[in-house]
Amino acid sequence: SKYEYIKSFETEDKIIPDVYITVRVDGRAFGKFAERHALHKPVDERLVALFNEVAARVVQAFSGQVALAYGHSDEYSFVFCRNVDVFRRRASKILSVIVSLFSSAFVRSWEKHFDASTPLQDLPSFDGRLLILPSFRHVRDYLAWRQVDCHINCQYNTAFWLLVQKDGLSKDEAHRALRGTDTGMKNEIMWQRGVNYNNLPQMHRKGSVVVWCRGRGDQNSRQVSRPLQNVYTPLPTEVHLLCLHCDLIRAADDDPLLFSSFGSLDEDVHR
Amino acid sequence: SKYEYIKSFETEDKIIPDVYITVRVDGRAFGKFAERHALHKPVDERLVALFNEVAARVVQAFSGQVALAYGHSDEYSFVFCRNVDVFRRRASKILSVIVSLFSSAFVRSWEKHFDASTPLQDLPSFDGRLLILPSFRHVRDYLAWRQVDCHINCQYNTAFWLLVQKDGLSKDEAHRALRGTDTGMKNEIMWQRGVNYNNLPQMHRKGSVVVWCRGRGDQNSRQVSRPLQNVYTPLPTEVHLLCLHCDLIRAADDDPLLFSSFGSLDEDVHR
Amino acid sequence: SKYEYIKSFETEDKIIPDVYITVRVDGRAFGKFAERHALHKPVDERLVALFNEVAARVVQAFSGQVALAYGHSDEYSFVFCRNVDVFRRRASKILSVIVSLFSSAFVRSWEKHFDASTPLQDLPSFDGRLLILPSFRHVRDYLAWRQVDCHINCQYNTAFWLLVQKDGLSKDEAHRALRGTDTGMKNEIMWQRGVNYNNLPQMHRKGSVVVWCRGRGDQNSRQVSRPLQNVYTPLPTEVHLLCLHCDLIRAADDDPLLFSSFGSLDEDVHR
Amino acid sequence: SKYEYIKSFETEDKIIPDVYITVRVDGRAFGKFAERHALHKPVDERLVALFNEVAARVVQAFSGQVALAYGHSDEYSFVFCRNVDVFRRRASKILSVIVSLFSSAFVRSWEKHFDASTPLQDLPSFDGRLLILPSFRHVRDYLAWRQVDCHINCQYNTAFWLLVQKDGLSKDEAHRALRGTDTGMKNEIMWQRGVNYNNLPQMHRKGSVVVWCRGRGDQNSRQVSRPLQNVYTPLPTEVHLLCLHCDLIRAADDDPLLFSSFGSLDEDVHR
Ligand SMILES: Nc1nc2c(ncn2[C@H]2C[C@H](O)[C@@H](COP(=O)(O)OP(=O)(O)OP(=O)(O)O)O2)c(=O)[nH]1
Ligand SMILES: Nc1nc2c(ncn2[C@H]2C[C@H](O)[C@@H](COP(=O)(O)OP(=O)(O)OP(=O)(O)O)O2)c(=O)[nH]1
Ligand SMILES: Nc1nc2c(ncn2[C@H]2C[C@H](O)[C@@H](COP(=O)(O)OP(=O)(O)OP(=O)(O)O)O2)c(=O)[nH]1
Ligand SMILES: Nc1nc2c(ncn2[C@H]2C[C@H](O)[C@@H](COP(=O)(O)OP(=O)(O)OP(=O)(O)O)O2)c(=O)[nH]1
Ligand SMILES: O=P(O)(O)OP(=O)(O)OP(=O)(O)O
Ligand SMILES: O=P(O)(O)OP(=O)(O)OP(=O)(O)O
Ligand SMILES: O=P(O)(O)OP(=O)(O)OP(=O)(O)O
Ligand SMILES: O=P(O)(O)OP(=O)(O)OP(=O)(O)O
Ligand SMILES: [Mg+2]
Ligand SMILES: [Mg+2]
Ligand SMILES: [Mg+2]
Ligand SMILES: [Mg+2]
Ligand SMILES: [Mg+2]
Ligand SMILES: [Mg+2]
Ligand SMILES: [Mg+2]
Ligand SMILES: [Mg+2]
Ligand SMILES: [Mg+2]
Ligand SMILES: [Mg+2]
Ligand SMILES: [Mg+2]
Ligand SMILES: [Mg+2]
Repeated sequence: SKYEYIKSFETEDKIIPDVYITVRVDGRAFGKFAERHALHKPVDERLVALFNEVAARVVQAFSGQVALAYGHSDEYSFVFCRNVDVFRRRASKILSVIVSLFSSAFVRSWEKHFDASTPLQDLPSFDGRLLILPSFRHVRDYLAWRQVDCHINCQYNTAFWLLVQKDGLSKDEAHRALRGTDTGMKNEIMWQRGVNYNNLPQMHRKGSVVVWCRGRGDQNSRQVSRPLQNVYTPLPTEVHLLCLHCDLIRAADDDPLLFSSFGSLDEDVHR
Repeated sequence: SKYEYIKSFETEDKIIPDVYITVRVDGRAFGKFAERHALHKPVDERLVALFNEVAARVVQAFSGQVALAYGHSDEYSFVFCRNVDVFRRRASKILSVIVSLFSSAFVRSWEKHFDASTPLQDLPSFDGRLLILPSFRHVRDYLAWRQVDCHINCQYNTAFWLLVQKDGLSKDEAHRALRGTDTGMKNEIMWQRGVNYNNLPQMHRKGSVVVWCRGRGDQNSRQVSRPLQNVYTPLPTEVHLLCLHCDLIRAADDDPLLFSSFGSLDEDVHR
Repeated sequence: SKYEYIKSFETEDKIIPDVYITVRVDGRAFGKFAERHALHKPVDERLVALFNEVAARVVQAFSGQVALAYGHSDEYSFVFCRNVDVFRRRASKILSVIVSLFSSAFVRSWEKHFDASTPLQDLPSFDGRLLILPSFRHVRDYLAWRQVDCHINCQYNTAFWLLVQKDGLSKDEAHRALRGTDTGMKNEIMWQRGVNYNNLPQMHRKGSVVVWCRGRGDQNSRQVSRPLQNVYTPLPTEVHLLCLHCDLIRAADDDPLLFSSFGSLDEDVHR
Repeated sequence: SKYEYIKSFETEDKIIPDVYITVRVDGRAFGKFAERHALHKPVDERLVALFNEVAARVVQAFSGQVALAYGHSDEYSFVFCRNVDVFRRRASKILSVIVSLFSSAFVRSWEKHFDASTPLQDLPSFDGRLLILPSFRHVRDYLAWRQVDCHINCQYNTAFWLLVQKDGLSKDEAHRALRGTDTGMKNEIMWQRGVNYNNLPQMHRKGSVVVWCRGRGDQNSRQVSRPLQNVYTPLPTEVHLLCLHCDLIRAADDDPLLFSSFGSLDEDVHR
């Protein structure tokens, strides 16, 4: 038709080869969402389990393409293998489908994690952004950046809700009390209220990593190696995926469980 | 932290002012999805009603920002007012949140439109793309382009399924039988099998338009003017939105019901 | 060869149809350049004549594609016809070739405008940027924006150099004297030193417009109509181009001399 | 002024950190240019010397920022150090200024390399494009890609002009004679006409590399090491730059003369 010319207003947004495509989704207005649904503070493990299942479904939908996902709070990041040809590397397709799947799965799986007393009230939504990371080192630093954010949030929120719930401070007062405090002072505040930060569940302090279970140990048994057992959460259906709550910052660059899905690192290092 | 520098890998994607931002979502692999859920052919009115409700929820979420939405088959387009400052006009935010809301609402509202015999089986997902249209004429041509697509699909699919269902042709045979046929020949095929294309529901032939109900006539009564009554579908909850099945191609540029939400066209013409 | 894959790192940068592509070049460090070459202050008419010839050569190289050029100080803008298919609308090609031609021509024509006492000393260079303007109104506003800049610079610089050259103020003192002054006060400063701003050459106050000579009056005679004669500068070689020093802000939208090369404005208004 | 809003049509085009920005300029219509100026075939050493001087001036203008330049035929590529903050990494600025300087310098230096019998007739111009290369390996492959191109061109053109000049073939006939020939056959054609390809000047077969003279050997003496002496061309004025005609494909990744300006490769490998 004579209107076909409009197709030419759709522009190419192809991503160059040999870089790590990364998408992060983040809940919109999840502060308000948490209140509306009376989520537990500071971390609602039902929400975490839901997010982890949702992330696992997204990773599974991009089998062989997404190498690793990491999330905490209301966000999740998906890192693709470097040379993946997903959607011919068209940025809009990649971004939109990741966000779409995440949103669908979130609504779909809500009831599995929250019982009838907590129905899904509002329509949840997520924004998404796509980053291009030029090397594996940047992937490591990206993950470290998000995990440091998890740690900072966990510390702040734990201290904050102790001040509110144990000391009876108003939210404003609690924020003011924490203003300018450093890590040590926040730990002290928790300690005085009976909380040893280092004993909080690793899931709260480290967030969650979704990876393919291969490498390290017997692949068929799909056993998680001893040191990881305490940081492991079973995922509902995905037999080939693991959800771990381990440290990504101090992990070895060549950890086969965490990073083997990115493909040969050797290759990367030589590049 | 020393990882903060990674933030600088997030790039600005601000859209210039004074252009019409348009987002189209399209179901992924909806051919297969339609089969898995045994959707009616060629148009399943339950699916249409679901899509229209979903679109209305998205439009409502962008109240004062999205001026009009148009959809048919497994796609829906959302056209923003020209000078809207949604998310500071950041393309990724706009694209991702539209797709996210659409996906959430689709899953959320499924049960309202499909009874227990047709549960949602797969995780539905949608891709999204963002176009920049420089003038109102391009918005009109964009909508006309999609509506011509609706018409062509409707004609083809109606003839196709008649050949399959009435004549007992295989799908391959039906596609072959239609290869190279023009509009007249397809109409003839339908006619010979008892279908007058022009008598098909306007919803099938024209698709669906979601607009704000203002302009034309008494706003309070929210009455749709006579000529539009036969092309009107009530929307479940959104009192300020109408869903119409009217012709967008032949509509006047200054139709107050269809186009008033875009803001003063005068202004546009003078620009 | 096995290195061919690197070609895929060259990305498409196609500009959407139906928008006005505009390129502005601006001299790099021309303040220093002006001093090094002892250019006249505030406006060196040799430099203006050089810039205008250079711009005319660029416009001529894009015959039928660039509709109008406007320049003042060390900058020149080139506005393409809306639907032009120059270099398949690839942004980098357009930007780079305009800047390249401008730079070549500048060096090439220097000697024609500056005699042997003022040889070209440094290598002059120009930055360039490409803008997308969605409608003719934006083209008008773009040109107005640059012409207002010309006026503001002219006023400031004229007053500034009078203070330096007539009153013997240092540059710092002159800047300080002008800080916070409005248009009226600057005019007063000039007036007291014997300069009536409105009597300054229109070339200084309005900058220069390079247009194709068609429309308005007898094309063959290439006569400029009476009201424009005082704002007209002959160009050295380009017989089909005019250089005018007229007001672009108050010009009619349908001025055939200024705007006819953009193509039918009617068409634009209807769009 | 009320036109200031147009400034917002200028969009950010910042390049992400930690990637190698590369700009290639290529002469426009240099086939025709070569004929108009009766350049020697297949390689005019005056043109090569001019290009090399021009490239050296550009490299010098980006001292500490451009690490290496490579050129042959009518093209030159400039590779920036990875983390350089040139023009805040704004792509248009970088691209346009490189092209501008190249063009200015080309016109400026023409007379130094061509005597009065070969005046510059047309206005030369260059297109430019900017690539983003994620790792040092890609820089190596980029340079190898261009150098293979040099070799292929040199071989083809040498054989071609021998057929034209020695055998008296027309250009069409010569092209036809070479169609489908492989490297060996082209070498044979040259050999039969008295040319041993491997004895052609390395400048013709390898193109030209402009690098900063540091690393390898005594920096103060600015001596080029023995193995490079036969592939070295003095540059007219730039004491800190060398122009070499060496092999980039087989060079060691850590060759201090060629690659030291890129900064620590160690760092890159660890990234
Ligand atoms: N109670 C509770 N709140 C949570 C939990 N996880 C996340 N949140 C809340 C805490 C924060 O208010 C919010 C996440 O912060 P964001 O910076 O993403 O802000 P928010 O989503 O409110 O706004 P945004 O639309 O992202 O700008 O979600 C949880 O497990 N329990
Ligand atoms: N039975 C049935 N099928 C429908 C209906 N609406 C859409 N579809 C199907 C027909 C097409 O196969 C499909 C839409 O075509 P598309 O070009 O979007 O392709 P599809 O979604 O399969 O793949 P894609 O991922 O978009 O490339 O959806 C409906 O109401 N009933
Ligand atoms: N004396 C003299 N100076 C002029 C003339 N035309 C332009 N200039 C000078 C005045 C300004 O210092 C300079 C133009 O200002 P810009 O804002 O473009 O700054 P400049 O080129 O110095 O730096 P840039 O690299 O563009 O950021 O050129 C002229 O005709 N005579
Ligand atoms: N005679 C002669 N010709 C040369 C020399 N160096 C380059 N050329 C010519 C050979 C080719 O025709 C041309 C370079 O090829 P290109 O692919 O860049 O094509 P051209 O510049 O003609 O067109 P373009 O605007 O780049 O698409 O320049 C030289 O040293 N001597
Ligand atoms: O659906 P089209 O025709 O607009 O094409 P696309 O979505 O860009 O591509 P595809 O559907 O093949 O992913
Ligand atoms: O929409 P905002 O304000 O959250 O903006 P953002 O780009 O998402 O910022 P951040 O990355 O800090 O959430
Ligand atoms: O010269 P190429 O092959 O890189 O191709 P291009 O410059 O992108 O295109 P053209 O030379 O045809 O303008
Ligand atoms: O390089 P600068 O600082 O001149 O930056 P710019 O984008 O060119 O700014 P302006 O348009 O004000 O010259
Ligand atoms: Mg945010
Ligand atoms: Mg959030
Ligand atoms: Mg968040
Ligand atoms: Mg598609
Ligand atoms: Mg589809
Ligand atoms: Mg579709
Ligand atoms: Mg500037
Ligand atoms: Mg300047
Ligand atoms: Mg300037
Ligand atoms: Mg080319
Ligand atoms: Mg060329
Ligand atoms: Mg070339």
